[in-house]
Amino acid sequence: MSNLTENAVGRLVPTEINGIPATPFMGVGKYRPDGSKAAPPIRTCADYPVDGNKVVADIKTALKNAGLRDGMTISSHHHFRNGDKVSNPVFEAAASLGVKDLRWFPSAAFPCHAPIIDHLESGVLHHIEGSMNGPLGDYCSTGRMRGMGVLRSHGGRWQAIQDGEVHIDIAVIAAPTADPFGNANAVTGPSACGLLGFALADSIYADHVIVVTDNLIPFPCIPWQIQGNNVDQVVVMDSIGDPEKIISGTTRLTKSPDRLLIAEMTARFIRDVGILKDGFSFQAGAGGTALAFAIFLKDMMKEAGVKARFVRGGSTKYLVEMLEEGLTDYILDGQTFDLDGVRSMRENPHHKDTSPFTSYNFHGKGHFASMLDATVLGATEVDVDFNANVVTHSDGRLLHGIGGWQNCLAGKCVILPIPSVRDRIPVIVDHVTTLCGPGELIDVVITERGIAINPRRTDLLEAVKGTGLPIRPIQDIKDEVEALSGGPPAPPRLGDKVVAAIRWVDGTVIDCVRAVAP
Amino acid sequence: MSNLTENAVGRLVPTEINGIPATPFMGVGKYRPDGSKAAPPIRTCADYPVDGNKVVADIKTALKNAGLRDGMTISSHHHFRNGDKVSNPVFEAAASLGVKDLRWFPSAAFPCHAPIIDHLESGVLHHIEGSMNGPLGDYCSTGRMRGMGVLRSHGGRWQAIQDGEVHIDIAVIAAPTADPFGNANAVTGPSACGLLGFALADSIYADHVIVVTDNLIPFPCIPWQIQGNNVDQVVVMDSIGDPEKIISGTTRLTKSPDRLLIAEMTARFIRDVGILKDGFSFQAGAGGTALAFAIFLKDMMKEAGVKARFVRGGSTKYLVEMLEEGLTDYILDGQTFDLDGVRSMRENPHHKDTSPFTSYNFHGKGHFASMLDATVLGATEVDVDFNANVVTHSDGRLLHGIGGWQNCLAGKCVILPIPSVRDRIPVIVDHVTTLCGPGELIDVVITERGIAINPRRTDLLEAVKGTGLPIRPIQDIKDEVEALSGGPPAPPRLGDKVVAAIRWVDGTVIDCVRAVAP
Repeated sequence: MSNLTENAVGRLVPTEINGIPATPFMGVGKYRPDGSKAAPPIRTCADYPVDGNKVVADIKTALKNAGLRDGMTISSHHHFRNGDKVSNPVFEAAASLGVKDLRWFPSAAFPCHAPIIDHLESGVLHHIEGSMNGPLGDYCSTGRMRGMGVLRSHGGRWQAIQDGEVHIDIAVIAAPTADPFGNANAVTGPSACGLLGFALADSIYADHVIVVTDNLIPFPCIPWQIQGNNVDQVVVMDSIGDPEKIISGTTRLTKSPDRLLIAEMTARFIRDVGILKDGFSFQAGAGGTALAFAIFLKDMMKEAGVKARFVRGGSTKYLVEMLEEGLTDYILDGQTFDLDGVRSMRENPHHKDTSPFTSYNFHGKGHFASMLDATVLGATEVDVDFNANVVTHSDGRLLHGIGGWQNCLAGKCVILPIPSVRDRIPVIVDHVTTLCGPGELIDVVITERGIAINPRRTDLLEAVKGTGLPIRPIQDIKDEVEALSGGPPAPPRLGDKVVAAIRWVDGTVIDCVRAVAP
Repeated sequence: MSNLTENAVGRLVPTEINGIPATPFMGVGKYRPDGSKAAPPIRTCADYPVDGNKVVADIKTALKNAGLRDGMTISSHHHFRNGDKVSNPVFEAAASLGVKDLRWFPSAAFPCHAPIIDHLESGVLHHIEGSMNGPLGDYCSTGRMRGMGVLRSHGGRWQAIQDGEVHIDIAVIAAPTADPFGNANAVTGPSACGLLGFALADSIYADHVIVVTDNLIPFPCIPWQIQGNNVDQVVVMDSIGDPEKIISGTTRLTKSPDRLLIAEMTARFIRDVGILKDGFSFQAGAGGTALAFAIFLKDMMKEAGVKARFVRGGSTKYLVEMLEEGLTDYILDGQTFDLDGVRSMRENPHHKDTSPFTSYNFHGKGHFASMLDATVLGATEVDVDFNANVVTHSDGRLLHGIGGWQNCLAGKCVILPIPSVRDRIPVIVDHVTTLCGPGELIDVVITERGIAINPRRTDLLEAVKGTGLPIRPIQDIKDEVEALSGGPPAPPRLGDKVVAAIRWVDGTVIDCVRAVAP
């Protein structure tokens, strides 16, 4: 078992992760990085085809050419979310080459990646570092993965690659359009899924970069979201992904009356405390409540005659409509969540693709996340100190990734609109099961039973006076819910084994996840 | 005096440049780099304003904040060419801060930078590394600069920064539009000059990056040719440059009958040897002959019903017309040479800005330059072995930069259309005064007295059969010209002092320039 130490938010965290020392969380903005960014090897054009044609026969050939061997790290990306058709063949090919103990470093894994479990079982893969949604989360959660899982935010993934914390040997980038040189994008082609921002760091820092496409066009592929000058090989497949499945799960508008109420209160809050004004900015996710919020906010913007300077996506048709109706100058988009988003990004120069570098990398010279006037996020749990959890439920099971959530906490006003109860289990607790975001960064919790403002935000407490918004202490809401639900959630039944570490945006360890009892 | 050694093309070159060991040229593609790319320091958002506003009062304040001190390297860029209004104030500010022995690392210097000579004289500047056009070239040429000048191609400049050969302490980037976060572009704003590709490496690798603009707009500045996440400070000035002056000198269509003949022969050559076909590509510079060539070629493309896949700029209105008339799918543009180019780049997504990274960096995973079917370049001299010179004239004076010239020699068919005589001095010589490009990479020399094909290109010698093109051995043309001019050019009167080194695209030293006798 790993050595554990208590970090600045009182959590016991491992001091070593998969054999490498790890720094415990030291408090927001407290950890100071030193040293230099990761430095990939210098290449020479003398080793690359002068005609620019880097196409090779198939994934297996590409992995062989890349020098795949035991213990290497292979990265891939979740631009297709549950529609990805590339990661599984990559590990099938790796298995057929007889290698062992690989580390998979996806930007996120989805239920479609369940076949990867076989490679974890057979020893081809040692462990996964990345969001594990669904079966892989469950596999990790029950303690069956040999190595420790590591969960990072999107920005944390950039930071880890940039800072040399994770060295990628081979990056595999599924690209809806590419040319033989390796220039690639995701706005065109039959599998167009929007953008390739999650693969950008990999393309810059990995030792070896393989682009996989099902739409090879003559040079030049423009736009080049991935630059061929960073690419070693290009592989053509029949189909790399199903773009319909980028709408997996979360991106359906809620019909729940409670959640609609929460969404409306969130929009009202933003309006009534004075955030809603010309030139403002906001970010909302693609969950059902967030989508409903965006619709309510849009109506209020129209009513007030207010135009945003920019909104941050995950874009959906609702954001696209705002852009097309002139309610915002720009969408700065990290991830298209539906095909309207893809179309808009392809056609509208005011719908700009971004990357975790621009938006979220905490080890940069600033990032977009901190400039947002209002940031609307979800959570699986929140506690009375406003600490929040996004990766586990109260039963301790690891079921979700962090996404950009931790990074977004840098926003000027961070709001969590959440139901007070899910499946009859209270969502506001004394202590979150897994602490993903420190309470000092979370300003407002909005439930169907009222709005709780973090006591640190005396400015907001002042601003709501006279607005008629149902402001309540968070403890009151919690007590009320517990009275109705028959008490707080049952404590999770957890073993001692640490199955996953939760990194903060600066690479330190903010919490960890224990195996659930079988 | 520096130690000199003979390199692979028989030139005596310094083994040390400004105190740092230098590798002599080893032959095309022979030098193998090792090691890793330059690694800038890891930063943290904790040190940057959360609201993204990095604007400071003025250049002097910015330099102070950047920690300017003796011996540092400051870079700047020639996007405005002779219309730059930023570099001079930077060194005035540096002088007023009392620092000494700086290295100026411009992508190119122009006659407008003549005031820099005062700073070289006073000791504020130690030396310049970069193209020195006009008075600064003259200053260096006469041996007055304390350090040794270093001339690099555009790609070589990227290579030098990327490989850590040149460490930039402070990059100053003049940007026609920027936001307070430092996102910047050159397609919009009153000083719009096209693109900022020459500053891209600096923005990525320099320790400290200052954006200077005369058009500050609210975040986000889109497109962001320079990313604010790489920028430390933003300075606003009244005017950063005169975009009318990007047309400085070279970009006027020739009226000389000889040069028009040469231009037409060049176009005919490309057509008649079979390069002109659907999907082909070419690059031509912005000299008067090259412009005329593009016009002849355009007519031939129309006549043949042929469309290019891409053409490489330096864009001018002539290339823009080709794009707008549907004669090419794309312009891949490293540098706009007139305001039509600027407009087209702003408005037309098929007119794509590029950088020395994409186009020219020899220490990358391929580059665009080698994919060109035909590359049309100039030269001040060429010798009977097809070696060519672009930086000095036969009198030995250093008057020109290398630009992308060395990089473009990677093209599939490299053609030098040059007059056989300039100012009554023969241009074809026994040995070029300064060897900037090895003859093995130069395929064709086209003069008004005939076309010389490099004997290595037996395929071209075969292809011209029956075309009626006036093919002649290069020696014949030389002999004829010398007979008419009264012999070869007088040898230059040179001293012993090496005043500048000429780097090859891989960073090795291919030749050097000696001081001219006063």
